[in-house]
Amino acid sequence: MSRPLVLLDPHPRKRERIFDSEQWARLVAMAEIVEDDAAPMRDELVDRLLPEATAVIGQTALTAERIRRAGKLRALINVEGNFYRNVDYPACFARGIHVLSIAPAFAVPVAEMSIALALDLARGVTPGDRAVREGSEIYGSAGNAAAVLLSGAQVGLVGYGNIGRALRKLLLGFGVTIQVCDPWLPDGYLRDEGMVPVKLAELLATSQFVFILAGVTSENGGFLGHRELSAIRQDAIVVLASRAGVVDFDAFVALANAGRFRAATDVFPHEPLPADSPIRASRLLMSAHRAGGMPAAMKAIGDLILDDLGLVLRGLPPLRLQQARPETVDKMRSPPAQAYQSPRPTR
Amino acid sequence: MSRPLVLLDPHPRKRERIFDSEQWARLVAMAEIVEDDAAPMRDELVDRLLPEATAVIGQTALTAERIRRAGKLRALINVEGNFYRNVDYPACFARGIHVLSIAPAFAVPVAEMSIALALDLARGVTPGDRAVREGSEIYGSAGNAAAVLLSGAQVGLVGYGNIGRALRKLLLGFGVTIQVCDPWLPDGYLRDEGMVPVKLAELLATSQFVFILAGVTSENGGFLGHRELSAIRQDAIVVLASRAGVVDFDAFVALANAGRFRAATDVFPHEPLPADSPIRASRLLMSAHRAGGMPAAMKAIGDLILDDLGLVLRGLPPLRLQQARPETVDKMRSPPAQAYQSPRPTR
Amino acid sequence: MSRPLVLLDPHPRKRERIFDSEQWARLVAMAEIVEDDAAPMRDELVDRLLPEATAVIGQTALTAERIRRAGKLRALINVEGNFYRNVDYPACFARGIHVLSIAPAFAVPVAEMSIALALDLARGVTPGDRAVREGSEIYGSAGNAAAVLLSGAQVGLVGYGNIGRALRKLLLGFGVTIQVCDPWLPDGYLRDEGMVPVKLAELLATSQFVFILAGVTSENGGFLGHRELSAIRQDAIVVLASRAGVVDFDAFVALANAGRFRAATDVFPHEPLPADSPIRASRLLMSAHRAGGMPAAMKAIGDLILDDLGLVLRGLPPLRLQQARPETVDKMRSPPAQAYQSPRPTR
Amino acid sequence: MSRPLVLLDPHPRKRERIFDSEQWARLVAMAEIVEDDAAPMRDELVDRLLPEATAVIGQTALTAERIRRAGKLRALINVEGNFYRNVDYPACFARGIHVLSIAPAFAVPVAEMSIALALDLARGVTPGDRAVREGSEIYGSAGNAAAVLLSGAQVGLVGYGNIGRALRKLLLGFGVTIQVCDPWLPDGYLRDEGMVPVKLAELLATSQFVFILAGVTSENGGFLGHRELSAIRQDAIVVLASRAGVVDFDAFVALANAGRFRAATDVFPHEPLPADSPIRASRLLMSAHRAGGMPAAMKAIGDLILDDLGLVLRGLPPLRLQQARPETVDKMRSPPAQAYQSPRPTR
Repeated sequence: MSRPLVLLDPHPRKRERIFDSEQWARLVAMAEIVEDDAAPMRDELVDRLLPEATAVIGQTALTAERIRRAGKLRALINVEGNFYRNVDYPACFARGIHVLSIAPAFAVPVAEMSIALALDLARGVTPGDRAVREGSEIYGSAGNAAAVLLSGAQVGLVGYGNIGRALRKLLLGFGVTIQVCDPWLPDGYLRDEGMVPVKLAELLATSQFVFILAGVTSENGGFLGHRELSAIRQDAIVVLASRAGVVDFDAFVALANAGRFRAATDVFPHEPLPADSPIRASRLLMSAHRAGGMPAAMKAIGDLILDDLGLVLRGLPPLRLQQARPETVDKMRSPPAQAYQSPRPTR
Repeated sequence: MSRPLVLLDPHPRKRERIFDSEQWARLVAMAEIVEDDAAPMRDELVDRLLPEATAVIGQTALTAERIRRAGKLRALINVEGNFYRNVDYPACFARGIHVLSIAPAFAVPVAEMSIALALDLARGVTPGDRAVREGSEIYGSAGNAAAVLLSGAQVGLVGYGNIGRALRKLLLGFGVTIQVCDPWLPDGYLRDEGMVPVKLAELLATSQFVFILAGVTSENGGFLGHRELSAIRQDAIVVLASRAGVVDFDAFVALANAGRFRAATDVFPHEPLPADSPIRASRLLMSAHRAGGMPAAMKAIGDLILDDLGLVLRGLPPLRLQQARPETVDKMRSPPAQAYQSPRPTR
Repeated sequence: MSRPLVLLDPHPRKRERIFDSEQWARLVAMAEIVEDDAAPMRDELVDRLLPEATAVIGQTALTAERIRRAGKLRALINVEGNFYRNVDYPACFARGIHVLSIAPAFAVPVAEMSIALALDLARGVTPGDRAVREGSEIYGSAGNAAAVLLSGAQVGLVGYGNIGRALRKLLLGFGVTIQVCDPWLPDGYLRDEGMVPVKLAELLATSQFVFILAGVTSENGGFLGHRELSAIRQDAIVVLASRAGVVDFDAFVALANAGRFRAATDVFPHEPLPADSPIRASRLLMSAHRAGGMPAAMKAIGDLILDDLGLVLRGLPPLRLQQARPETVDKMRSPPAQAYQSPRPTR
Repeated sequence: MSRPLVLLDPHPRKRERIFDSEQWARLVAMAEIVEDDAAPMRDELVDRLLPEATAVIGQTALTAERIRRAGKLRALINVEGNFYRNVDYPACFARGIHVLSIAPAFAVPVAEMSIALALDLARGVTPGDRAVREGSEIYGSAGNAAAVLLSGAQVGLVGYGNIGRALRKLLLGFGVTIQVCDPWLPDGYLRDEGMVPVKLAELLATSQFVFILAGVTSENGGFLGHRELSAIRQDAIVVLASRAGVVDFDAFVALANAGRFRAATDVFPHEPLPADSPIRASRLLMSAHRAGGMPAAMKAIGDLILDDLGLVLRGLPPLRLQQARPETVDKMRSPPAQAYQSPRPTR
């Protein structure tokens, strides 16, 4: 029996940025892999091989015409975490072709970074280190008037997807109460997970720690506007870990600068931030979109792909990657994980 | 029946630094409280009232002579976390007088700060924020080459007391393996707690995250010397959260500066650090002894005292404060919590 | 705007066996509900209303022809937990119609019963009670020679689906190691969940507690045969909680009767068990298929349906019920939950 | 330097009932062990060796006179779990001699058995098995009308000591709310452990599962009388796992027989139960005092003794065994663990 065929498109990520050598060995043991020197893979090659391919790894364009000819295709595995517009999704769904994203690989990294940023704000780690360097440190409790504990606190998650689930697990030992606002999730589900479903206004007004984890959709751009952000508790710790587009960023910066709350962000409206952006001198704790793209995530990407490809090749449904769904794929302007994975220019 | 008498010595902490108004109301409902304007409480007052007192709150000197006359005394409640030398401990133990310390009030605050410092090092939060401020930030995975996850990591605890127990609980959701080295604890105890007892050398050589939590005793000064610290993994994250005295601090700084490991400290050999100390410009992540003395700890101090005083007044053994033990009280040069509570000069 | 239409087929469960009054009120607030006196719903009614229906609750036959005419249909909600053969699944999948099962409602009930049966065997609860009634009890440790602890034990799960996930959560505080054998799941997934993927033979030979949770598929009938069962540890506790069809039941009974292991079962090859079945006098701990169908499960069924119907009516993907998948729906001869819910004749 | 001397009194347990061969090897490596053929150890031997002994294992009488002459004695290790009256406790306390009990060795076994009995009642395991044997079983949900879940339930613990702590850990994955009534524990302690302190009446009236774990003291005999037991919820599951003496046993049986609640007991007012006791035919689920004394507990006894003896011999305080406390030792009529360990006549 011939081996299954898998196309590996070098666009948007070359092989070595997806698989380490051990993972690559597992991949080639699983299927016949065809790559191309050109990125994206040349149309001629795609058109010739697609009818025999069981899966495509990469961001190859899949038009309705191509899908019609790809009679054996079971999965398109996106290696960047968002659902590109170069795929005819209805055609895929009608054919039962899984369109998969690596978003889950970034969940634990972003969740840990969210806790890192939250605890940094709660205890003044970054300004405290700066103070020692500058010789202005204050020792002991005299320097801790605003310090708060995460243990036992009221926590609010704005959006509950991959990152939220990872964050909830990490918080297990902290004895927190978790409030969640997510319009795509039923209350019963959240309650069964041990959390408290609440309206956004209540979450913002009552949470000591607010984690903004919602991805941008066609429906929620800037839904955390000046009015919403103004309702946040004075003593709150706010961490923006998903996408700049879900908040009115100017209001966010202005309120943080005014001391209305303590806030950190891993994302910015424009990245890289302009050299002269006043945000650089703000009171925000800032991270240059580094919450997700770390070595452990890169390792996870290869592992998740191998696991799901293995299932697909055995005629089983995939399990670990995020699956595009007919109801939501068109709404996801920047799916949750896209934020954390995309290679960005580094100037 | 007359109410029990409790002496509240304003030394070393005045009433309002121990109890908030709600706690104070609970205290006066429990017993007759006698304070003094003078701090420490005047000898005349102590000598006159001690024979009737059931408990003393504060650091009043308790000589053998005083203890002999204090026929009703059940507890001396230290409000600073260390066991002072102005108490005749053998006389207390022979009489069954509990000598108690508030050290446990600092356990959760120090444990959370330890995680804050560890995650800051693991993800480069403080230097990352500095980079954005300076315009030298690197976006995404390009800036994350050395980033590591706490989730699933090998963790090593050097010393396992109040802080260690709190830290272990916080780590519950991170899926870590915890190695412990503590010469005062039997292996079976550690194993039953789900941890792995190891020798110091093995812990240092194999842990990705090393938390130094051991207090200074008469036996362990500088036990983490240059040789021990040199055995730490190249990629390790090291957090010194207990006392500067347990490490060879010069070696610690030198190795961190040489990039042998990433390290943070909340304590210094001399506090305040001299203005011209080269440590200020080191590669350490630095905190000015702020891990313990935060508002939540202050609140906990009052609560722990009230709970244990309530037990003692009802003829029951105390439960929440740390009890001086005959075997170890003389060895504790700086009991675990002393580090985190003492009000320090702020220059 | 007109309200969405939902058909409620009285077959195989009448309304009042699915929804309590509070749930019913939530349902009618959500959509226009049409029922029928006849069970199953009369064809004439189905054919007339289906083109306008958004969802069907019940086991209505959905032929390709009906599906073609059901232009607004988004979901078929099965109220019994198995995927019946009266539905054209490929036609549903091609149209993106969700076919859903209530199987998850039985997961926690079956998982708790599995622990109940396991602990009963481990401690001899049922024979111990019988002994007291008969006057033959043995007090204290003399009667406990074979008693074993679940805490800290090696546990093996044969099959890891809804029940397995629920069981894993319940075992959280027992400090067990969990080995899993499930051919539909990749090793990486199991490892990320904190479990150990193993081959069946290794699981059976090394686990102190063996939970058989696999449903019957077209591929696995009787896969636990005499040879496999004979490999189980002498001191093992074996709980059969899914379907009799996955084991060679005669061998299972014979080995338990021979004292090769201690075993419990909630299922039988024929239910009701013939009056003269020798199994009745076996050494098995026996339960008459009562692991799943309890009041809490009945309540959960209504809740899960309401949550997912709410999502579907808002144009979102369902989340809580189990979804039929193209790859596996044909293989599921008795989906995991079917076993636990179906009302059976009681003689 | 000479090796420390430890006396091993064969009363009330012979060496081989305390230590397995591996444990014995560890013991003799630790100290010079002197045993006696006679049980209890002959007075002549005790009197001669006690002045040189560092520890005594067993239930040797320690009068004030003996203690005065036992200048090196650091610990008396009771191997039965209760604090016998043949020891002059005040003399021990004044000298700092630790009097230790093996009670903690029974905590996990009793806690697991408590869950076993509770789940058995909740799901009707024992009567269900009996029904199958008798041919009167009812299949599926029809037989489950009274079945309740532990998951998510309100749980009440009457008494919170060694067993309670072990039980709380086991319940971690069940998502329960835990109410506790224990007059020796402050509310703040219980709250910090994540539990809800309540009055006894409230606990009994509101808990779905009631675990009676309180030991008998000089103050609490029969404190669960007819009035208290009558306040228990109609649908409650009640497990008596500590001592028969804390309840009005006649009322307990009568109420269970009347169907006022479902109840199980591991203890009886007289053990063995008289052959003609009507309790044998009651509706109680009965266990012949088998909750504690199982092989895993026997193994734990040796381990705990070795761990604490090791600490004592190194001049450190013991940690794992339960320590007699001046305030409570006289009140403990049957300390929590005594119930679970003592070998009882078996007729």
